[in-house]
Parts: sequence; C-alpha cells; structure tokens
Amino acid sequence: MAELSIKEIEETLLEMGEKAKIASYKLMAMNTDTKNDFLLEMAKVIEDSMDEIILENKKDLANGVANGLSEAMLDRLTLDKERIQAIADSVRDVIALEDPVAKNISTNIRPNGLQINKVSVPIGVIGIIYESRPNVTVDAAVLCLKAGNPVILRGGSEAINSNLILAKCLKRAGRNKGMPIGSVQLIPWSDRNAVSFMLKMDKYIDLIIPRGGEGLIRTVIEQSTIPVIKHYKGVCHLYVDSEADLNMAVEIAKNAKCQRPGVCNAIETLIIHKDIAKSAAPIIGETLAEEGVLLKGDSEFCKLFSDAIQTDENDWSEEYLNLTISIKIVDSIEEAIAHINQYGSGHSDAIVTNNAKRAELFLTTVDSSTVYHNASTRFTDGAEFGMGAEIGISTDKLHARGPMGLPELTTYKYVVNGTGQIR
Amino acid sequence: MAELSIKEIEETLLEMGEKAKIASYKLMAMNTDTKNDFLLEMAKVIEDSMDEIILENKKDLANGVANGLSEAMLDRLTLDKERIQAIADSVRDVIALEDPVAKNISTNIRPNGLQINKVSVPIGVIGIIYESRPNVTVDAAVLCLKAGNPVILRGGSEAINSNLILAKCLKRAGRNKGMPIGSVQLIPWSDRNAVSFMLKMDKYIDLIIPRGGEGLIRTVIEQSTIPVIKHYKGVCHLYVDSEADLNMAVEIAKNAKCQRPGVCNAIETLIIHKDIAKSAAPIIGETLAEEGVLLKGDSEFCKLFSDAIQTDENDWSEEYLNLTISIKIVDSIEEAIAHINQYGSGHSDAIVTNNAKRAELFLTTVDSSTVYHNASTRFTDGAEFGMGAEIGISTDKLHARGPMGLPELTTYKYVVNGTGQIR
Repeated sequence: MAELSIKEIEETLLEMGEKAKIASYKLMAMNTDTKNDFLLEMAKVIEDSMDEIILENKKDLANGVANGLSEAMLDRLTLDKERIQAIADSVRDVIALEDPVAKNISTNIRPNGLQINKVSVPIGVIGIIYESRPNVTVDAAVLCLKAGNPVILRGGSEAINSNLILAKCLKRAGRNKGMPIGSVQLIPWSDRNAVSFMLKMDKYIDLIIPRGGEGLIRTVIEQSTIPVIKHYKGVCHLYVDSEADLNMAVEIAKNAKCQRPGVCNAIETLIIHKDIAKSAAPIIGETLAEEGVLLKGDSEFCKLFSDAIQTDENDWSEEYLNLTISIKIVDSIEEAIAHINQYGSGHSDAIVTNNAKRAELFLTTVDSSTVYHNASTRFTDGAEFGMGAEIGISTDKLHARGPMGLPELTTYKYVVNGTGQIR
Repeated sequence: MAELSIKEIEETLLEMGEKAKIASYKLMAMNTDTKNDFLLEMAKVIEDSMDEIILENKKDLANGVANGLSEAMLDRLTLDKERIQAIADSVRDVIALEDPVAKNISTNIRPNGLQINKVSVPIGVIGIIYESRPNVTVDAAVLCLKAGNPVILRGGSEAINSNLILAKCLKRAGRNKGMPIGSVQLIPWSDRNAVSFMLKMDKYIDLIIPRGGEGLIRTVIEQSTIPVIKHYKGVCHLYVDSEADLNMAVEIAKNAKCQRPGVCNAIETLIIHKDIAKSAAPIIGETLAEEGVLLKGDSEFCKLFSDAIQTDENDWSEEYLNLTISIKIVDSIEEAIAHINQYGSGHSDAIVTNNAKRAELFLTTVDSSTVYHNASTRFTDGAEFGMGAEIGISTDKLHARGPMGLPELTTYKYVVNGTGQIR
C-alpha cells in the first residue's frame, strides 16, 4: 500500500463515510432474502478463497514473529483451513437468524385517528474498532449487514493482511450480488490519526463499537463525537454469602475462575462473608490452588489461608485474564455490594446464598449488566442466552447492555399514518 | 455565591458526582410509593414557596433587563403564581404516571434451567444541561427521579437565581421525606469550565442530556466522555407528492408551519413534486403568505410564485423558528428523500400522497425519528403520542429516538436465577 499523507487519508475516510451513508439508505429498504443472498455469497467466496487467505495470513504471522508476538498471540492470529471454514460456517449461522428489522414494536391509535407504529429499523453506519482475531472482520460485518447497517471496520495492525483479504472477499461477494457499494469497508492504514479522524465523522457514522483493552477504549470515548457502545473489560465478582450452600459456592468459584480464565465473564475477585469464611476460605482456597490458581487475599483471607499472597489496592480493579484471583472477606452483604459497584466493570456478578431477601438485595443493587443468583458468571454470552451470534458484550448502559445480538444492532422509528390530521 | 477557583469547582463537582452515584444505588431499590412521596412533597414545597421563588426570579429578570434580553426571552424567564402552580401541577402529573422501573421485559428459561429475566432498571446518574425556561429544573428532575435516577442539573446563567431556588425547594422536600442526599443537585456556577469538567465525569455520570442550540450541542458531543442523548434542532420537512390531495397538503402545510412556528416539530422546508407544482405552488404560497409567512424558494418555485425570494444553500439546514419557510421543487420522490436525509436533522418529516407505494418508500427511507403519511409533523410530542410527560425529543438514534418519556429514562439488566449451574 502506497504511503498517503494525513490529508489524503482524511479525504479517503470522508469518501468512505459518504459511500457508507448512501449505502445505508439502500440497505435499510432491503428485504431479508436480499440480505441473506449477500451473506450466502460471502460464505461461498470465503470458502473459495482459502488458499489466498492463508497466503495473506502467513505475511501477518511472519511479521508477528519478527515483531516478537507471543505464542498465544500468534495462535490467535493464525488462519488455517479449519478456522476459515468456521468463519464461513458462522456466516451461515447468521443467515439462519431472524431478521431484526421492520418488526412492529407497538401500535398506538390515538383519539384523533393517527396510527403510531413504533418499528425497528437499522441504526445506520456502524464503525467497529477491534484488536482481536481476524475472524472479527467477518463476524462483525455480517451481523451489521444482516441488521441493515453498512460497516466500516478498523482492525489491529498485526492482522492487517488477513483483515484486508477477508474484507476483499466480502466486497467481492457483494459485487457478485449487487450489494450497495460502501456496505463493507475496511480502513487499510495502521496510522493512529486515521482512527482519531474516523471518530469525528459524526456526519456519516452513527455508532462506534470499540472492542479491546483499556487504552483503546479510553482513546475512543475521549475522542469520539459519535455515540459509542463500549465492549470493555470484565472485572466480575462472586460473592459467597454467610447463608451460601458451601458445595455450590466451591463449584461455582472453580467454574467461574478456571473453566476459561482468559475471557471477560470469568471472575477476577471472590468475596466471602466473614461468618462463613472460616469454613469456606480453606476449601475454596485449596480447590482453586489445585487448579493452579494464584491466590491473592486481603489480610483477613491471608490469615485463613496461609498460601495466599497479600493483595494491593490495584488488584481489585485488575482484569487478570489468567489463573489469578483476588479474595476479600467482608462484614456484610452491603460491604460486598459496595465493593462490586466501586471496583467492578458493570459486566457480570454473582451471589451464592440460600437467603432470598439477600439475593434480592444483591440482584437489585449490584449495578451490572448481568447479575446471578446461584449460578456461574460464565453464562453471560450470546449463545448461552439463546441469542445466536453476538457482536460482543456491552459494558455500557445505554441502548444495549450485556450480550449484544442482532436486535441490539437496530433502533426504532415512529411511523405515523394519518388522513390529514392537523393540530 | 463566593468566587471559587477552578480547582475548588472541580473538587466540588467530584463530590457532587460521588454523592449522586451513592444516591443512585439507594434510589434504584426504592419502590413507587416512596418515590411518589418525594414528588408529592416537592409539589407542596413549591406551592408553599411561591413568594420566595418570585423574589429570586425578579433578580434574574432585573439582570435580564440590564443585559438587554429580548421581550420574548424575558417572558420565557418570568415566573408568576400561575406558572409556579403549573410547575407544581406538572409534578403531580408525573406522580400519576406509571413507574417504568422493575418491569419484566422478557423471561427466557434455558435448557439448563437458568431463568434469565430482562428487567427495566434506572440508568443511573443523569446530567441535564439546558438553556431554557426555569421550569425545566423541576420537570427534568422529577422525571429522572420517578425513573429512579439522581440528577445533576446545569441551567442557563440567565435563570440562575430561579433555578437555584427551585432546586432548593426540591432538596428541602427531599430532606423532609428522607430522599437520599445527592438525588437532586444543581451546579451553581456559570463558569464554562464547570461544564467541561462535568462532561468528563464518566466515573459518576451515566448519561448527559443536552437541550439547546447548535453551540451547546457541539460543545457537549465534542467534550463528553459520557454517553449523550441529544435534544437537537428540528429541521422538519413536508413533501407534497404529485399524487397528493391538494386541499390536505395546503391544510397540513399551514398547520405544520404556522400553528406554532417556534417549536422543533414545525416545518422549515416544503418540497413539492414538479408535476403538481403548477397548481400547488400558488395555492400553498398564497395561503402561507396570508398567514404572514416569509417565503423563500428555489428558482423553480420563484418562477411559479413571484412573491418568493431566492433561497441560498444555507436555508436548507436552517431552523428558522419563526414564520419563514424555504420551498423546493423536485423532479422525483427520490430527490425529495435525498434532500431530507442530507439537510434534515432526523426529527420529523411528512409526505402527503394518495399513492401507497410512494408513501411506503418515504416512510422506509427517510432516516428520521418520526415519519408521517398524510399528517402534520406537529404531532411529534410526548403528550400527543400518549406518553404523558416527556423529558424532550431525542434527535439521536441510540437508546431513545423521538419523544422521550419515562420508559426511555430506564435501561435494563439481566437477572439470572439458578440452582448452582456451571459451564
């Protein structure tokens, strides 16, 4: 790719925005079959382009090795035939999902005869900024398109060649089937100024979804003049109440921490009521230690479980994403709730208790997208919720909260039919 | 009020934010009767404080005269006994509205037995930035409170004394009834830096609602790291199709432009299909001229109606808020729709036609909060929609679009009940 000046990049971005906006007016009127046709062709083109995709992916892998990416990161970056097939299959899964657009949400016939229908409609142009695996390029694009939204994608620089070839496949498929030009676009420059400029294009982009770590999220919310739905970290908690079933608490703690520690709905912090701590702390501590978990505790926990190391203040807001846990002993459920609301990320938090009143208090006043009574936080997930594919998990409160599926990629408008009514 | 340094203002704002956040955890668990008790006491205290309110309002009026405010602005600023009673009455209207919190939106029982309830909950702390009449201080606060949200208010400097006394009444009522401290707060400084700082307090404030003109809105969306729902201008359109009922078109044009030209749902631009222009342009032109409307037209319209003056490019995106209209003749409905999507503000737009297919095209592809077929745009209003009180009309697409009532002041959370489920 030839080097462009910032001015040229900005002009190209504006053109991309304008094209996407024009495409949005066409896509919003397209029926389900037409949109599914685009998607089916995309799955086919991806399947037909495996060799080409693997070739481009190898360039990213070579760059990754040269830049010293970790084994884990290289693995996440790798596309082989099986993974490419999985990407194509996931496109077919989206075809099978119900179209969320043009649903009548409510009808209200007013005394003057006006019929006010509240109808689901596409949001418009969606910008996705992501740092993760190249499959997001396809997954995010087809979900947006199925909901009638053109998409402008901006992936991580380490996957640029893989992202470019995948976006090319989507565009090729679109051309084959007459999809509006500008429905899928990928920003090809890793220049950070391109993102900053994109975030000011409120004339053309209706929603920004950033998926990534703290740095990316702060940049986006500080710079964006476009509404943002954050997909931020999960600092999730499990609170073991004094009236908990201890066996259940042990099983849930083990599952929520260990089953897949690198994901956002795994717990980072365990909170134990002091009245059950003497019995609970050693059992939970040993169970987790057997699973290879590094235990950090406040001074009370460390007294009860000598293998734990002392936490510091930073631990409470840390998303470890590995087999580390911080453990706190509290005097009351109120203290537990206050801790979660202060240090949590509003993602997923659970209580284990047999006391219905305390469960109710926890579920009502823990200010998170998903709150659990006697279940693992690991269920916060589009598939587990029965939504089908998800574009991510919103840690914001507005518009979409928690797992975000196709319906959350729409908004609504009021369609009013009259017979000449005036005020 | 003693002068504070910027540092002191910032510290005070942070304290206000923290107090509001703590109040939010208490308010979110309060039942309808408790919240209505607070509101009823507010209505009573306002009624009991009429003399005090009028005294403070007179200070603003005197300052307004000294600062050369227009008669219209002074009138908007004025509080007399009748208007104060109207404010108290509107509080009672909100008491009568249904509580939007703790509604079960959906229940989903998964194969593993998990019961996933999607439940409406308060949004959290809401910041309202407004430039308008002092009654907004009370109207906005009680709507937020009824939906369980603490509110931080920031009104215009010209109404500062009136806003302060009204906020004082609300706080006094709250104290009488044990409302959480920090549920209602007003920023008492007109310093612009206070707003800039408030807009970065994403740790404490969950939503900013700006109500005002272009300058205010741009400032907010450029500076805010908090989600924003804009209540922006209304550049609304009426499109008279070639197959329109001409009498209906004339009546709707007259109503939408003249019945109350200073509001956001009045039209600014009339678009006429060329095939009906020869008959429609003179009749509509004369009718509007008789009502005292200043007619600006493109060159085609000026040919058909010689009293019109030529529009320039700026007219098409202008919110006149008075008896001025811009008129355009188009070759096709597609040209009309493209014009509306380019120059409109996404508020309210109407088509008059007897052709069902064209109506459908217009309703589907005009990207506005409310679209009308054969009715006046003047109906975009909470009361007209049967919502009861509204906090305003959102020109944004996310979370709330169009008239924004109590339900739009809530979000949702997933409340999951289990029996020990793990993954």
